[in-house]
Amino acid sequence: MNLFFDPNLNSNSSEVFINKSEIKHIEKVLRKKKGDFLNFTNGKGLEALVEICSTRNSLTFKVKDIIHHTIKNQNTHLAISPLKKSNIFELVVSKATELGIREITPLICENSLRKSINYDRCNKIIISSLKQSLQYHLPKLNKATSFKNFILENKYSMIAHCNEGEKTTILKALQKVKNKTIIIGPEGDFNLDEINFARDNNYNEVTLGSNRLRAETAAIVACSLMLACE
Amino acid sequence: MNLFFDPNLNSNSSEVFINKSEIKHIEKVLRKKKGDFLNFTNGKGLEALVEICSTRNSLTFKVKDIIHHTIKNQNTHLAISPLKKSNIFELVVSKATELGIREITPLICENSLRKSINYDRCNKIIISSLKQSLQYHLPKLNKATSFKNFILENKYSMIAHCNEGEKTTILKALQKVKNKTIIIGPEGDFNLDEINFARDNNYNEVTLGSNRLRAETAAIVACSLMLACE
Repeated sequence: MNLFFDPNLNSNSSEVFINKSEIKHIEKVLRKKKGDFLNFTNGKGLEALVEICSTRNSLTFKVKDIIHHTIKNQNTHLAISPLKKSNIFELVVSKATELGIREITPLICENSLRKSINYDRCNKIIISSLKQSLQYHLPKLNKATSFKNFILENKYSMIAHCNEGEKTTILKALQKVKNKTIIIGPEGDFNLDEINFARDNNYNEVTLGSNRLRAETAAIVACSLMLACE
Repeated sequence: MNLFFDPNLNSNSSEVFINKSEIKHIEKVLRKKKGDFLNFTNGKGLEALVEICSTRNSLTFKVKDIIHHTIKNQNTHLAISPLKKSNIFELVVSKATELGIREITPLICENSLRKSINYDRCNKIIISSLKQSLQYHLPKLNKATSFKNFILENKYSMIAHCNEGEKTTILKALQKVKNKTIIIGPEGDFNLDEINFARDNNYNEVTLGSNRLRAETAAIVACSLMLACE
């Protein structure tokens, strides 16, 4: 099954509009033709079953049925520092979306080598991963937020770090925390001030095992463990 | 901490030998000098504490202490089809190593677009991920094996696929299986014959959630769930 994306699709839509390059893909690669059906989503929970029709000169896409999907994995949230290489941060965005995370925040930490991300590229990656993984709700990509502001707005969550301290596993922490929110630091990890600040705001310190994981690996592992417990 | 790799290190070594480019890295990037200590592993469980000494013209590296580490995550094994893009397969190798998997087998399936991998590159990636994640045991990268041979040699394991069938979660399957071995198919998934063959050989069919994951995401998620339960 292939899932297509049209942000303008709504409950009353009778037709969807596709750009020329995608139509070419549908005809030449997927070999779909008049009378075949396609699945569309608007990324807000709606799925439309669409029939390929044709006029004299071109194909049109008529909505035949609409399904409303309920949202899954609510309140799952990954906050992670922008990483040194932007394609590695984008790998995290892609994998977190595939796994079904609901919210992603770039977290500006003391050791963050970059203070921003490319939102256009990340949003394209999110749509592509949504389609690929057959989901109907786009995760929300928030604006970059400073470490302290994020902590103050998201207390009682989880922090994964490599410094010393008493830690629990994600699976155990999930039984205690209110929000399934986890924060992951940059390549140089959080500094001690940051870890103490999180502690003071009732963060659960979690371990992802005894190996020292790269930031992107830690993020993907954290998402897969959080979502496995849904 | 930085961990260095020397496959020739053994319990009786009094010195380790480092190539010129790595010495340059140690001096110029890590800014280590005479009297500083470095940690080495041979990838077979041994860690050596090594002092930087100097002769007239060059640095030498004297072994001061040796530690034997016991192996963790024994009998964890990921078998995955070579993927269309070799760098994506190598991403899986890198992440599985970081997470601490003990054995990786390239699995040749009906839908595998490639039938081989680049062992030299994969072995370099394994060493680099081992050092980065501060581990002391290299995982074993096996020769590519045909699907049926692998199944016959590794019965009572786990298969993750997207086809229909009664499935359990990895966390539940792990309570039943003898070996922590999981097989992941290529981009086009296993075919029905293969799934039936695995079923006939007492494989547990596992789900990685309701989203359709890319092969590499499935592999990383499977490893992180298997190793979280150690």
